[in-house]
Parts: sequence; C-alpha cells; structure tokens
Amino acid sequence: MTNSEKALMLHEQWQGKLNTVSKAPVNSREDLALAYTPGVAEPCKVIAENPEAAYQYTMKSNTVAVISDGSAVLGLGNIGALAAMPVMEGKCVLFKEFGGVNAVPICLDTQDTEEIIKAVTYLAPNYGGINLEDISAPRCFEIEKRLKETLPIPVFHDDQHGTAIVVLAGIINALKIVKKEPADCKVVINGAGSAGVAIAKLLLTYGFVNVLLCDRTGVIYKGREHLNWAKEELAEISNPNGETGSLADVMKGADIFIGVSAPGVVTKEMAAGMNRDAILFALSNPVPEIMPDEAKAAGVRIIGTGRSDFPNQVNNVVAFPGIFKGALEGRAPQITEEMKLAAAKALAGLITDDILDEDHIIPEAFHPAVADVVAEAVKALI
Amino acid sequence: MTNSEKALMLHEQWQGKLNTVSKAPVNSREDLALAYTPGVAEPCKVIAENPEAAYQYTMKSNTVAVISDGSAVLGLGNIGALAAMPVMEGKCVLFKEFGGVNAVPICLDTQDTEEIIKAVTYLAPNYGGINLEDISAPRCFEIEKRLKETLPIPVFHDDQHGTAIVVLAGIINALKIVKKEPADCKVVINGAGSAGVAIAKLLLTYGFVNVLLCDRTGVIYKGREHLNWAKEELAEISNPNGETGSLADVMKGADIFIGVSAPGVVTKEMAAGMNRDAILFALSNPVPEIMPDEAKAAGVRIIGTGRSDFPNQVNNVVAFPGIFKGALEGRAPQITEEMKLAAAKALAGLITDDILDEDHIIPEAFHPAVADVVAEAVKALI
Repeated sequence: MTNSEKALMLHEQWQGKLNTVSKAPVNSREDLALAYTPGVAEPCKVIAENPEAAYQYTMKSNTVAVISDGSAVLGLGNIGALAAMPVMEGKCVLFKEFGGVNAVPICLDTQDTEEIIKAVTYLAPNYGGINLEDISAPRCFEIEKRLKETLPIPVFHDDQHGTAIVVLAGIINALKIVKKEPADCKVVINGAGSAGVAIAKLLLTYGFVNVLLCDRTGVIYKGREHLNWAKEELAEISNPNGETGSLADVMKGADIFIGVSAPGVVTKEMAAGMNRDAILFALSNPVPEIMPDEAKAAGVRIIGTGRSDFPNQVNNVVAFPGIFKGALEGRAPQITEEMKLAAAKALAGLITDDILDEDHIIPEAFHPAVADVVAEAVKALI
Repeated sequence: MTNSEKALMLHEQWQGKLNTVSKAPVNSREDLALAYTPGVAEPCKVIAENPEAAYQYTMKSNTVAVISDGSAVLGLGNIGALAAMPVMEGKCVLFKEFGGVNAVPICLDTQDTEEIIKAVTYLAPNYGGINLEDISAPRCFEIEKRLKETLPIPVFHDDQHGTAIVVLAGIINALKIVKKEPADCKVVINGAGSAGVAIAKLLLTYGFVNVLLCDRTGVIYKGREHLNWAKEELAEISNPNGETGSLADVMKGADIFIGVSAPGVVTKEMAAGMNRDAILFALSNPVPEIMPDEAKAAGVRIIGTGRSDFPNQVNNVVAFPGIFKGALEGRAPQITEEMKLAAAKALAGLITDDILDEDHIIPEAFHPAVADVVAEAVKALI
C-alpha cells in the first residue's frame, strides 16, 4: 500500500480527525441543572454584564478557529470549502496535539472578500483567536488586514506568518554558521504569494536590507507594470537597488535564496551563481525548486526544504501552536511584528551552539520544548 | 452554596464545557505525513471530485453546529452572542452525551436576518446538520424556512420543533389516560413565540382540529389587527370557530392547555374552568404559568412542566439528540414533519401501558433507550 492509499484509508477510518468531548458531567438531573438549565443562566448573566468574563466561563479562552475559503489549499489550488476540510481538520489536530489549544475547522463556502470578512467578524465572539489558512493571495492580505483592524482577538494567517517565522529562525542560525550579517546579505525570494510577501516583510523588519522578490515575470521593482496592490507595496519597500530581470539574473551573487514557488524552477547554474557560503531554502512541496543534492553539488552550503526526509525542514508546526498558545494564555489582542520576531529568535535559540551545523538550523516538530519556548516568547511581549 | 453559585463556580473550573480531541495520532513524522501533508491531499482530491465523499472522510458526517444569535436566550432575552456561549456549549454537551453526536457552538455576532442566513449558508459545508437555537420569533421562522429551502442538510430550530415533539409525545399519552380523541379536543396554547407556533402546527398535523393560540393580547383569530406574518399564518390555520377574547375566555371548556409564556399567567379559576379530565402543560421555566399543586386543586387531571422537580417534565433533551443522531446516520437532507410526528410517537411509545399514569406520560432524559428509539424512528423515514 502506498502512503497515499494509506492516508486515504486512515481518513476513511477516522471519518473526521476531531471529536468534541464534554468537560462537564451530565449523568444526573443535578448535573444537568448545573451544566445546562437553570444553572447555565448564571455565567450568561455575568458575561452579559461584563464581556471579558467570557474568557473565564467559556471555551473562548482556549479555542482557535482555523478558517479557510478553500481557495489555495496545499498545492491543490482552489478546491473549495468542502474539499478543504481534511486539511483544516488536520491543522486543528496539530493545534491541539502540539500546543494544547482547542481548534475548530471552519471552511467558508464563499470566496468573496467582503463576505469572508463579515462572516469571520460574526464568528469572532466564540474564539480567542483566528487562524486564517489556505486563502489565496492577494485576497488573504486584505482579509487579514481588515480583520486585524476591527477584531479584538489575534488574527494570524499562518501561510504567511508561520512560514516567515520558521524561515527567519533558520536564516538566523544559518548566518551564524556562515558568519554573515543580515544587512550585508542579498536575499532573493521567489514566489510573491502569501508566504513570499510575508517572508520579505519579516526579513526587512528583522534587519535585512537588500531583499528582492520575484514572481513568474521576474523581479519586482518600483515602476514595473501590471503589479497587484500587494506587489506594488512590496516594490516600494524591497529591491533598493532597483534591479530588473529574471530570477536567474537577480540570483547572481545572492547570499540567500528562498523559494516558495514551484518544482524545479532553480537550475544548477542558478545555484552555482550565488555568493560563497550560500543559503538556499527550496520550499516548494513535495518537489522543491531544486533538489538538495543538486544544490549541494552546485556549491550551496546550507539547504532547507519543506520536506521531512531532508535536513532543515521548514515546518510551520514548530511555530503556530506555540504562537497561539502564548497569545491565548496572555490574552494578546494581536500578534504583533515584535512577537513574530521573538518567536523566530526563540526557535533559533533552541538550536544551541553544540548542535548547530549545516544540517541542523531549525528545531524539529517533535522537539519537546518548541511550543512552550515560542509561547513564552510571545507572552513576554503582551 | 446555592445552586446558582455552584453553577458559576463549575463554569469557572471548566472554562468552557467542551474540548476538541484528535482521533488521528501525530506522534511521529510518519503520522504527520498521513494525517497532515502530504497524505491529507488524498481525501481532499477525492472530495473535490465528489462532494458526497466529505461524509466519508471528514467530521461532517457526525457533526452538528448549534447556532444562535443570542437574541432569545433561555428566559434571559436578548443577551447577545458572547453571553449566549455557555448555553450553546451546554447544548453541544447534550448532543454528545445523549446522542453521540459531535456538536460545536457558534454564536453569531449579528441579529440581521439576511446576514444570519448568509453566514449559516457559508458555514454549512462543515456540518451534517444545523441546530438553530435561541433565536427570537418571528425572525427564527424566516431564518429556518429560508435555510431549509437552500441547504442540502437538515436545519432544525430546537426551540420550536424539539419542544413541539416532546409536548406532542406527552399529549399522546395523556389522551390515552383520559380516553379522548385529538379531533374532539379543544387545545389552547398560550405564547405565540417559536415554541407556541411550532406546537400549534405539529398538533394540527397530528390530527387536532380545534387549536387556539394566544399572545399577550388574547386569542389569535382571522382578521385580528397588528399580527406579525407568523401570527397571520397561524390565524389562517387555527381557531376554526373564530373565537375572540382573552386567554381566560378561550380557556373555558378547553381539554388541553399548553403554556409557553410567562410565570403565573394562569389562575386557579382559569384552570378550574377547563373541561373534565383536563391536561395542562405549564412550561414557563423555572416558574410555570400555574404551579402544579394549584392546578391539581383546581381539578386538572394531568399536569406537565419544564421542571425536573415535578412529574412529566417537558425536556427537549429527550428529542434533539436522537433526532440528529438519526438524521446524520441516515444522511437525511431534511427533518420532515413526518419525522417529527414519528419521533413524538416513538417517545410516547417508551411509556408502556404498565407504567403509564397521570405522573408518567413522558420518558425521562436518562431513559437509556430514548436517543436510539427516536433515531430509529427518524431513520425509518429517510
């Protein structure tokens, strides 16, 4: 049986990867009168008087919604709400198992930006935080921005920020090995979707200066025609030297390459043209932009992928459970840029000098401290 | 410590009455690759090809949403989404503990009918059924009707139909004791909100003919001014003799009284004026329309209330868990009038002749067969 067949068989056995269970016993009339009517009226009355009490008396305090419109699911694309369910359930499993956070999957049967914003707004009272997932760019930027402006709870688009945090953690450690400073590095990111844009922004916030973002047309620069608004914004803050040309053109002399794009788009020649001690993250999954052995042969020193069967896996599961765990425990109203930086640094810090090497720059998903270390970093900034 | 204090203390300890738990292990990289990427793509692809497969591979098959806008919560009124949470969590607990059905609470932060309809429509793919809860009349009728017209899954407003089913079950058994036929009975219902309207309709469907519905103004009759559209509709199908007047007026000679209204609105004199072998359900909770001992003293033969400390409790928990259990197991696209009648008859049938008496007309919540018997009755009609 192939792994694909096994996954399908298991999903059929599970018939849904989540159950809801009761914390309140209802084995007697007395139980019922406390967990339900008439006793349940008491916390209702307190919350009606003081909305903050919802954190004290309901699951809001420890529950996140994983919300998608099914428009950009894994590498499968726009498969819609219903077909996105297995992914969102899986994400909820990871929230619970890695972060101890209750999570419920919500696939919305609309891909209209305004309708999604309204629906999430109506749903918000139930949750301590909103994790947006697998929503296509550039709609995801608008949806996240608008919700952050209005909702009193954290809104976090994991495809953007989770990925950016783990990439930055890996880069921080990789730079220790190659002994380069962020401000001296040329960084080329290929893929201007949700992850690429967020990685560019977080690297700029961290202290990188010469960051270039490429899409299918080539590098994004100020004045390039036919850019969507998100890319326009990136053109303003990235590519300070106004480079033009193809991905191959701008990769020449780059210190760091980060691919969040498509299988095989980086050739051996492109990898070989990078600067000495190059760092290359080929995150297209399951088939990377260039296979690690090819990149190695081309002279790249440190290589990361999205896959668990190669060293240095960039896996969001080291970030999002801890980020929401910390945000919920500290009742953060938002997940700020500072928190994202702190989470990346905390993740990087888990790789101590004695274990740091070219193949060990990012903690593994099953590192026992990972969620707590990230949570504490986030909480320290609330 | 009073029960109110105890309920509040327990709610603080629980900090939410539900947890989500994973059915899928994620203890190794191999587990992750099956429950999440890349394996999770397989069920996604199958569902994208064939939407029905969602029942096979996701929690849709066994999960209900308990949806409220917080506009008519218990006796507390319009306390809003956040303050309604403890009730909806409690309802979800009952779904799971009594019916084995996963349920998630969703309190919507809007009371606009159209917005609620849209939000529920967007949410529908996730669930095998929708239980509407504590939405004020007459909006609840419109919301339920519109959603039933468009959604491919059962939509059930428990305050209406759950109550109506349990009331009918009790009436069926009460009539056995007093040896009257439905068509010969005068039925007076006080309270023209969600429960009152639904009870009137279900009794008419069952075979009652002379059913009268009263609101605060008195009995509803064809041509009465200032009726909302739901009451207009009731005026057309109820009160065939065109009676007018107050509740006290129409209760004279009634065989059956059903109160879903307010504490103490039925006096001893009104109860005493009913027909011989009168049946009286005083469901205002916790304080009934008339206390059972007063009604008894006034000559009423069979009395039910909403309370667990008196005989014949009308408690929806004997109905809704089994109804959704059956509907989900049989993948019913709707919960039909026939299913509601069948559920009521099945509930009534649990009170066998040997235990049937004035104080035993409705099965108790903790009757071990109740959910299965109701579920089978529903499934038999799919």
